[in-house]
Amino acid sequence: MNAHAPHDPDDFLREAIALSLDGCRRGLGGPFGAVIVKDGHVVGRGQNRVLADNDPTAHAEMVAIREAAATLGSFSLEGCVLYTSCEPCPMCLGGAYWSRVDRIVFANGRADAAAIGFDDAFFYDELGRPPAERSVPMEQRLRDEALVAFAAWDGKPDKTSY
Amino acid sequence: MNAHAPHDPDDFLREAIALSLDGCRRGLGGPFGAVIVKDGHVVGRGQNRVLADNDPTAHAEMVAIREAAATLGSFSLEGCVLYTSCEPCPMCLGGAYWSRVDRIVFANGRADAAAIGFDDAFFYDELGRPPAERSVPMEQRLRDEALVAFAAWDGKPDKTSY
Repeated sequence: MNAHAPHDPDDFLREAIALSLDGCRRGLGGPFGAVIVKDGHVVGRGQNRVLADNDPTAHAEMVAIREAAATLGSFSLEGCVLYTSCEPCPMCLGGAYWSRVDRIVFANGRADAAAIGFDDAFFYDELGRPPAERSVPMEQRLRDEALVAFAAWDGKPDKTSY
Repeated sequence: MNAHAPHDPDDFLREAIALSLDGCRRGLGGPFGAVIVKDGHVVGRGQNRVLADNDPTAHAEMVAIREAAATLGSFSLEGCVLYTSCEPCPMCLGGAYWSRVDRIVFANGRADAAAIGFDDAFFYDELGRPPAERSVPMEQRLRDEALVAFAAWDGKPDKTSY
């Protein structure tokens, strides 16, 4: 058996879980870990580092996505699977979609996260509401001025789409 | 007039728009810019750097949130306003919620982004669906094993909540 290609895919999820426990014990952040796998090989790992890095975006999945993209030298993680110790929050699920991973496997659910004090479930509810009904006020202004940049992108002949 | 505290708050949004156009012209990524302001001062700036950094999470708002958190030395951006050249995608809106900004001001809307080929509106639709009905398959496994890390967090006496 090749140590880099476990026969049991659950072993990747178990590595994500082990990272979640390790990060919690070391005080890096919340109890969350993630692993990204391509062709049976781990290409990115992440632990929640919100506290260690003073970075509210440093969730395990985001850290793993950034590491995997750096490993592969590409903004696309097509062909990859994201294993995460907990159902991704809206930020991380959005990040997973932008990264174009093929599939997501998770262990704890958003209700489990809510039960220990995390806002994932609340944020899902908020994002489903029209902007005017959300708890964080949102206001649209100067659309006409901003459209100039969108027109510049649209007319750019050499642009790379992502 | 203090250059660091413009009298017109729209000037902050105009700076975000200027960053969006600059980033597009320089090929850093899509035409998106963001500025984070606290007490009338810019504490973080961001341009989309998906292409420049090969990082699918490097949206303007995420870059600005990370810079603001580093500037303030805190994972909380309470008391801050996020000015962004386009309505945040679900990843960035989730990031804004986690950062605890007070308010969001945006210029272009998600439909404008869709019109030039970005998936923001599609991702909002996807996140609103039950996991089983999404285009990216999601599977829950090993919850019992993962709950151990959540119990460790829950029982941690010295933990910092965020």
